[in-house]
Amino acid sequence: MPLTRPFKSLLAAGALSLLAASPVLAEPAVEIRGTGDLGMVIERATGSVVLVDTTHKRVLKNIEGFGDLSHASVKFTRDARHAFVFGRDGGLTRLDLLTGEIDGRIIQGGNSIGGAISQDGRFVAVGNYEPGGVKVFDVETMELVIDVPASYEKADGTTDQAKVVGVVDAPGNLFVFSLFEAGEIWTLDMSSEEPELTKYRDIGSMPYDALITANGRYYIAGLFGEDGMALLDLWHPEEGVRRILPDYGRGEERLPVYKMPHLEGWAMAGSQAFFPAVGRNEVLVADTQDWSLTHRIEVHGQPIFVMSRPDERQVWVTFAHPDNDRVQVIDTRTHEVIKTLSPGESILHKEFTPRGEHIWISARDSGHVVVYDTRTFEELARLPAQSPSGIFFTHRAHRIGL
Amino acid sequence: MPLTRPFKSLLAAGALSLLAASPVLAEPAVEIRGTGDLGMVIERATGSVVLVDTTHKRVLKNIEGFGDLSHASVKFTRDARHAFVFGRDGGLTRLDLLTGEIDGRIIQGGNSIGGAISQDGRFVAVGNYEPGGVKVFDVETMELVIDVPASYEKADGTTDQAKVVGVVDAPGNLFVFSLFEAGEIWTLDMSSEEPELTKYRDIGSMPYDALITANGRYYIAGLFGEDGMALLDLWHPEEGVRRILPDYGRGEERLPVYKMPHLEGWAMAGSQAFFPAVGRNEVLVADTQDWSLTHRIEVHGQPIFVMSRPDERQVWVTFAHPDNDRVQVIDTRTHEVIKTLSPGESILHKEFTPRGEHIWISARDSGHVVVYDTRTFEELARLPAQSPSGIFFTHRAHRIGL
Repeated sequence: MPLTRPFKSLLAAGALSLLAASPVLAEPAVEIRGTGDLGMVIERATGSVVLVDTTHKRVLKNIEGFGDLSHASVKFTRDARHAFVFGRDGGLTRLDLLTGEIDGRIIQGGNSIGGAISQDGRFVAVGNYEPGGVKVFDVETMELVIDVPASYEKADGTTDQAKVVGVVDAPGNLFVFSLFEAGEIWTLDMSSEEPELTKYRDIGSMPYDALITANGRYYIAGLFGEDGMALLDLWHPEEGVRRILPDYGRGEERLPVYKMPHLEGWAMAGSQAFFPAVGRNEVLVADTQDWSLTHRIEVHGQPIFVMSRPDERQVWVTFAHPDNDRVQVIDTRTHEVIKTLSPGESILHKEFTPRGEHIWISARDSGHVVVYDTRTFEELARLPAQSPSGIFFTHRAHRIGL
Repeated sequence: MPLTRPFKSLLAAGALSLLAASPVLAEPAVEIRGTGDLGMVIERATGSVVLVDTTHKRVLKNIEGFGDLSHASVKFTRDARHAFVFGRDGGLTRLDLLTGEIDGRIIQGGNSIGGAISQDGRFVAVGNYEPGGVKVFDVETMELVIDVPASYEKADGTTDQAKVVGVVDAPGNLFVFSLFEAGEIWTLDMSSEEPELTKYRDIGSMPYDALITANGRYYIAGLFGEDGMALLDLWHPEEGVRRILPDYGRGEERLPVYKMPHLEGWAMAGSQAFFPAVGRNEVLVADTQDWSLTHRIEVHGQPIFVMSRPDERQVWVTFAHPDNDRVQVIDTRTHEVIKTLSPGESILHKEFTPRGEHIWISARDSGHVVVYDTRTFEELARLPAQSPSGIFFTHRAHRIGL
């Protein structure tokens, strides 16, 4: 269904403040370099980031002024020059990777969980908890383009706004996202001057996170309020949302769950999907042809991020507290755990280099990031960072859904 | 089998000349920009290239001095700042994409067909026709690291050197390539200080080109001397090379073949591989689970490049003379030709933007490159170029085998 209000009239909606958050030098020092081997490490406690070089495995700069970065995520522009950082304080901050300076920052909402950049690179969408909805900004000017409140009708007939989670980009210049309280999945088509909103209702209880497959076809939302997951096949939107993996979740026993696993990290290897069990020390394997569960792999703890090495031959797993001092590596052919590593305390995130020769792992309470050779498991570097969490490399600019 | 000569002693081998091919300005004008949306178009007749910007769909600079660029290809460095151009005259030329200047050029062999950059970004390998072999250079210094002559034993017991084709990078810091006259596939492992060479013999008659799948697992060589193809599963090298698609080729009828199709462009969509038939107006489809032929799709002419849009929903096909004035688009679900386009005369190559919203197509005899929206098929731009052939965008730096 199209939006009832035309596109143009929405331009004025929403509070917008474009300001520099940190003092910008008159002539910032610009490093002349390619941007294909740059990356960022989020320092969650200090609202800062570490700019890194993945070729020389070194820190280039420490940059402050990003606000509240607990649970922050990052998206890169199509030219891989800028990064947008989505902060928990509703801040949307643009970093110039070449100058190492923040060149745009707005407080666009009350509480943001993440966002995405459109396929054509023109738009950055932010999903908000408070007030619930999605705001889309122009990547160049950071001006508001469209404000989409996540309004839904409650059981008692009144209207409320839902928290928005699982915002991703998809082919066709779509943004796709989920409404937590509403149990809905919406797509926002930005391919024409009149953005078109489509709503899928009754997709399940309390979608709390989502992922999109690397080809941009399947959008899968995890459900907090019930078992199973909601799948939208974007090649066949007319079929609506269907339920898959009916036993996925906490189950009848209502297991103690230390932390709901992240879905973004689902590992696809051929026709196998590797993903974290909820509340169990298991990595699960499904057949992506029919989304049936095929294997359970016993691991060290409750898995959080289950990520495939780019060549799909290994899957690397991080764990929830109290087992978050280990990382395990699974062979995707044999389903065996072939290595257990101890990079430090409170391991939060990991990122492979684009062709998979190295992995960078953040250990929050150890205050460092460790770089491993993924073939020999040799430690190659250990870089200092203050409470490091998310790690993001610029090649994501060129991938669907990342 | 390890090389008989140790690594260090090989450093002096081979003729090496590091020289600037074009006059370099004392202070080249450097553009401060991200390198994620840059690309190059080869101008085959004039030994020049066009540097392009895929965000604004415009020409940034025309650069000369690359030697003979008929059938030239390009690889990008890991930081996406430099491009290596492999010329037919044996020239290996390094272009700085930010200055737009050539900053290194050597004549490393007599006749080169292409090359690859290693997974770790340190080495560039060049496959040579004359003399047959592979030379590996340091990406930074362009100094020779190792010279691997493609020596093989002929039926009469004498030794000769074979033309090298199908050079690709693979995970584990491997280079993989094929020896035309020898009917062999070799892997060169650059992961340690002592590179290790492994030879697979009797793989079939006259391998003329090869491809590697996007995950770096399967290396597939096309055979000129017989039907069928040679497949090396790099996850199971102990199983050796096996034959697949036994009917693939010119067949018993020895059809007139206008041009042997390129293999690099094989399109993988889910578990389907779309690839050009030889001498027939067909695109073939195989099941990658068992490499059996499942479908034949009738198309406009003899296909040359069959390439998948990054989201795997479409396959775009170019054709051999005399049908090379058309491009056709196949829907990967229905296997139907959904569009036929006429971008110009003598269409040689095409390249998708990394997330697939656009495609750039070179029409040699029309002297232009046309940019299309892949969803609406609308023409978005038409850029001038002299006899344009290959088109290469920098996101290839971050992909296995590209």
